[in-house]
Amino acid sequence: MSVDASRLRLARAYLSRVAEPPAPALHRLISEVGPVEAADRVHRGDVPEPVARTTESRRNAFRPRDDLAAAAAIQARLLIPEDPDWPSWQFSSFIAAAAQGSEDAVPPLALWVRGDAPLAGLVERAVSVVGSRSATPYGEVIATELGIGLAELGVTVVSGAAMGIDGAAHSGAIIGNGHTVAVVACGLDIPYPLDHLGLFRRILTRGGLVISEYPPGVKPAKHRFLVRNRLIAALGGGTVVVEAGIRSGATNTAAHTRALGRPLMAVPGPVNSAMSVGCLALLRSGHAVPVGTAAQVIEASGRIGIDLSDTPEGPRKDTDGLEPHALRVHEALPERAGMSAEEVAIESGLPLSRVRGLLPALELAGLAQRGDEGWHRQRANR
Amino acid sequence: MSVDASRLRLARAYLSRVAEPPAPALHRLISEVGPVEAADRVHRGDVPEPVARTTESRRNAFRPRDDLAAAAAIQARLLIPEDPDWPSWQFSSFIAAAAQGSEDAVPPLALWVRGDAPLAGLVERAVSVVGSRSATPYGEVIATELGIGLAELGVTVVSGAAMGIDGAAHSGAIIGNGHTVAVVACGLDIPYPLDHLGLFRRILTRGGLVISEYPPGVKPAKHRFLVRNRLIAALGGGTVVVEAGIRSGATNTAAHTRALGRPLMAVPGPVNSAMSVGCLALLRSGHAVPVGTAAQVIEASGRIGIDLSDTPEGPRKDTDGLEPHALRVHEALPERAGMSAEEVAIESGLPLSRVRGLLPALELAGLAQRGDEGWHRQRANR
Repeated sequence: MSVDASRLRLARAYLSRVAEPPAPALHRLISEVGPVEAADRVHRGDVPEPVARTTESRRNAFRPRDDLAAAAAIQARLLIPEDPDWPSWQFSSFIAAAAQGSEDAVPPLALWVRGDAPLAGLVERAVSVVGSRSATPYGEVIATELGIGLAELGVTVVSGAAMGIDGAAHSGAIIGNGHTVAVVACGLDIPYPLDHLGLFRRILTRGGLVISEYPPGVKPAKHRFLVRNRLIAALGGGTVVVEAGIRSGATNTAAHTRALGRPLMAVPGPVNSAMSVGCLALLRSGHAVPVGTAAQVIEASGRIGIDLSDTPEGPRKDTDGLEPHALRVHEALPERAGMSAEEVAIESGLPLSRVRGLLPALELAGLAQRGDEGWHRQRANR
Repeated sequence: MSVDASRLRLARAYLSRVAEPPAPALHRLISEVGPVEAADRVHRGDVPEPVARTTESRRNAFRPRDDLAAAAAIQARLLIPEDPDWPSWQFSSFIAAAAQGSEDAVPPLALWVRGDAPLAGLVERAVSVVGSRSATPYGEVIATELGIGLAELGVTVVSGAAMGIDGAAHSGAIIGNGHTVAVVACGLDIPYPLDHLGLFRRILTRGGLVISEYPPGVKPAKHRFLVRNRLIAALGGGTVVVEAGIRSGATNTAAHTRALGRPLMAVPGPVNSAMSVGCLALLRSGHAVPVGTAAQVIEASGRIGIDLSDTPEGPRKDTDGLEPHALRVHEALPERAGMSAEEVAIESGLPLSRVRGLLPALELAGLAQRGDEGWHRQRANR
């Protein structure tokens, strides 16, 4: 690594710690003077007031070399906007959202990453699948199936590695032999949630990534989950909420998704399930499109006119395709015994001449039969 | 009854039998020459070709006096458009739909009615609740709850008296001490469905109505269910589909509802339930609004700005209402032991001065406590 590249990485590591994300003022400063100069100025305390306010408490507290070493110790690396696999296109939506007045619409200053795959490549075709930690078996089944289906269609599953829906979505992607990206809300060295250590291992051994905006040692906290959610929303081409209570982190991710102008989807569930109330509210608001299958998710979030799902079709019946009058004659026929054409005309209300024409046609189709006592219905042999 | 009134009723009884509904050509003739003259002309065979075609097979086959007697024998009456309790307003939608090219958009020529209540009064505030005969327990629970809820809010439940969702909706209305109208697809003397004889009795003893476009003796037939569905759609201020397979009579009623310009609603269900596939398709098409409660049904089908449902709310938490910085300070605090204000500033990333201001505020709110070792979190006593 050249001296410049090394200084750049050190500067980004320092900046990633010195302000609690999202840090719009610091992000603006970096855009103006570059990361190396910005880091120097922050460290010296020579910055505009909004930057000072968000950096003063930490500017002397940490050393970026220690953070990079701590990351290396857990096979993590620092991904910076100057790297080729930085997902620039995905994060560019923050600019438009910020222009619309969304204050928190700030890309991360850097990302701490476990796993070797290039992030930009992995999220080129990606969907975020999120939902409640206290999911129901229904929600976990659907999240798993969506994960499998998306993986099988070559789409990366982005989620937050939480218990419940998130974990099921990641697992589904792995089962489907696909890639998955877990965006966590704490340092990558923090084993959280503890029950998902096995999941993190599987994500990494199967070519996926575990990423975080937070340097090593940073603990999970409620506001960090909310801030993290904007990255989940940004990294997916669309976001599916599988299950969500009425107060839910998933509805927060949904709000970020809308702010970023990405397609928002919700999986309908039983209206009397507390875990589907959030999805119902999203659907009722008109902000989310209802989806039930991976194909429908891709149709809603994918390339217009290309990724179309099939319309579900019911089983075919013998009488399918009969025109209405033929159907009326068929309905008028008795199952057994027999009926004259005149009786069929009265029963069906159709002219006798029309009935006389239709009965032989139904006989040809194997749907009517003429016996000694007259006409009766026949089920087609299949 | 005057001679004229009696002739009018006889003419309508005759017309109600002579053509299989819907009978647009015959309806036009009646509009032009009146029901008595129209009945005479049909009986003589002196009618335009489109009317002849739909009446020739039955014009000599039945006697209206016998039909009226058969109806009286089962405590049924003939309700005609000239009666004051004819639901003229509801059926007027057919005219607009016909103008849009909907061929089957024809009001009934008369209605056979069991029950004493005035039909027009009963459907002044009414919602149609329909769905699959092979409903799941989930669908039947929701249909029953919607029936109860609508009844309790003074709204009449209209449905088709079929097994499954229809029966549950009617039953719910009765449980909720409300009124319900069953629109059947056969003569009122035909015990169909046989398992619902008890339901029909309860509907009638609780002030509801069982009505049909078909004179006594007419058997149920597939096309009659479809034709009947237009009346269910017309008599409700809106239609809710509770559960429906992908091929379903309920989706046919949904199509009639749209053709009549009435609000269409669907109850979401598990996306992996075959009985919710039809509802999901209606929701995905954008033609139906998702609903889960009677209040939401009334909001979607009722008087704009008056019948608004409540937005669901989650349980309140101690930290509700804290502004974001206070929440960050609260999150930074340890559960036990203690932290200095400087440490809280570093952990939260907020300026020390801000932290020093917020900690006492949190203490006042009962959310933080200062101990010998510094600040820690406190759960509010509730």
